[in-house]
Amino acid sequence: MKRILTGDRTTGKLHIGHYVGSLQNRVALQDAYDTFIILADVQALTTHFENPGLINESIYDVAIDNLSVGLDPNKITLFQQSRVKAIAELTIFYSMLVSVNALRHNPTIKTEAKQYGFDDLSYGFLGYPVSQAADMTFCNADLVPVGEDQVPHIEQARKIIRRFNTLYGKGESIITEPREFISNTPRLIGLDGNSKMGKSLGNAIYLSDTKEAVNQKIKLAVTDKNRISIKDKGNPDICTVSKYHQVFNPSSYNDICEMCKNASIGCVACKKQLSQAVNSLLEPFREKRAYYESHRDEVRAIIETGSEKANQIGNETVEQVKSAMSIQLI
Amino acid sequence: MKRILTGDRTTGKLHIGHYVGSLQNRVALQDAYDTFIILADVQALTTHFENPGLINESIYDVAIDNLSVGLDPNKITLFQQSRVKAIAELTIFYSMLVSVNALRHNPTIKTEAKQYGFDDLSYGFLGYPVSQAADMTFCNADLVPVGEDQVPHIEQARKIIRRFNTLYGKGESIITEPREFISNTPRLIGLDGNSKMGKSLGNAIYLSDTKEAVNQKIKLAVTDKNRISIKDKGNPDICTVSKYHQVFNPSSYNDICEMCKNASIGCVACKKQLSQAVNSLLEPFREKRAYYESHRDEVRAIIETGSEKANQIGNETVEQVKSAMSIQLI
Ligand code: SF4
Ligand code: SF4
Repeated sequence: MKRILTGDRTTGKLHIGHYVGSLQNRVALQDAYDTFIILADVQALTTHFENPGLINESIYDVAIDNLSVGLDPNKITLFQQSRVKAIAELTIFYSMLVSVNALRHNPTIKTEAKQYGFDDLSYGFLGYPVSQAADMTFCNADLVPVGEDQVPHIEQARKIIRRFNTLYGKGESIITEPREFISNTPRLIGLDGNSKMGKSLGNAIYLSDTKEAVNQKIKLAVTDKNRISIKDKGNPDICTVSKYHQVFNPSSYNDICEMCKNASIGCVACKKQLSQAVNSLLEPFREKRAYYESHRDEVRAIIETGSEKANQIGNETVEQVKSAMSIQLI
Repeated sequence: MKRILTGDRTTGKLHIGHYVGSLQNRVALQDAYDTFIILADVQALTTHFENPGLINESIYDVAIDNLSVGLDPNKITLFQQSRVKAIAELTIFYSMLVSVNALRHNPTIKTEAKQYGFDDLSYGFLGYPVSQAADMTFCNADLVPVGEDQVPHIEQARKIIRRFNTLYGKGESIITEPREFISNTPRLIGLDGNSKMGKSLGNAIYLSDTKEAVNQKIKLAVTDKNRISIKDKGNPDICTVSKYHQVFNPSSYNDICEMCKNASIGCVACKKQLSQAVNSLLEPFREKRAYYESHRDEVRAIIETGSEKANQIGNETVEQVKSAMSIQLI
């Protein structure tokens, strides 16, 4: 079985954008791949080191989000990044193999630095692609599912690993060079019509939202603003709700667009249909979530077991790496 | 007992400049301080990642150098940096607390980058003060003996630790802020009269040199070049040999300078006296060295035991750190 490494930064609970963007895929792949899911608390520190309380809270939140959508703890390895010492060790080794300038010119680093308003980058933030290379390789992952925007990170990681293998491998590959696995799901826009559904933008439907919260949020979603009366013809192309129908209610999507355009459906009814679709997706997750939320010890045990397994695998990788670098005592 | 952290990069065997500059001090302090001696193989990678063979060889060399001068394995903790996972973990945590610009402007980084001819710094090289902060703090060292030129590193480390304690300590100090312990021993110049006795400059007397090698090297040492005949009066102020007499033969130093100035001693005799002084210093070391060289397994066991102890202490520190940062599962 090929191994996959995927996961989330623990900087807040996950929303339905995460679901369609990646969790859904994880569930679909868990039988065919040896799936490692990282709760990236150390990486969360790169942007949230001043708010460790949030990171802590999010470890359970994100774990339960993953479990509630149907990831099976008996199949996957769910682990906490900070418990895998090898990730730190590999980061240090890899840090010799990439120049400061190469990292500074990484387009994702540039974009993200701007996004977080950093003009004076921390050393740790700049090294984020290096630590991602360590995430991918401590367990010798074959595949890393990512969005298009993350491809430069994978490219950077692959460069580091190639350099490592060339320098220390004596012709052999010590570390698996991971390949990206680009998911074709479109990014879900926010309820406010903003380009991105964001944890921090207040425009997201969380996997943990109740039925009522979903209804309420969709009620307030931004539609075609020119459609004032129910008699006005609408333009679904500029309506957030229609975009959600496309994703969560695909079988009715074309009909709804038609009805909107000829004013045979009102926005209230249209939103109600969307609420139903979203809630019927979330309903089975809620049941699982209720179970895990009332069995916090079980969640803890899942994370601990996964982390221990990951840590052991990582330690073996580090031993191989150190032996290839011949910094072991002989 | 206060704890001291000191040590050497494993990039070659140690010379008598290291002895007077720091090993001598270590021996003197080992009874009064809990002394941790780091065999800095990971730090050696920052400059020698393309030559891991040298680093490997040097681990035993440097360990035996330390043991041969009288450091007692029952008193000190001699450990290999790469075996202490906490150092890597702390480096990552600390890397969030220092900006890329602060590191770029560190004067020691600048000087050393120039020295190694780096214009495109590796990420790891730039982070060398961050990893030094981790070296000092994994065992909560109170004191770090350094030369004047290393003070900016300590200052940088202290800044990081203060920031850590302020952010996560809630008024308490989680990590000990180390103080520097400046050694007043002058830097020993090279046999060629060059400013620095250097591992790589071919101008060094190694602790492992035989009596014959010492004699030979001192024979070739650069003296007052204007003194051509034995009848010429010499100028000890511009003579390498006299500077060595000052350090290794202090009781005769004044007499020798006098005799040199009034041409009552020839350079050959003067050098012979120095050879005797250096060899009588090294003689007892040679005995111990011979023992350890024929008991390589014992050296290995000393390093392994020390590294295991250091690793455990480091793991405890990391647990405290993670708990202060609240990235532990509760
Ligand atoms: S009917 Fe539906 S698709 Fe059309 S504008 Fe209203 S909410 Fe949007
Ligand atoms: S006599 Fe000694 S101190 Fe004077 S120049 Fe010769 S070697 Fe140097």
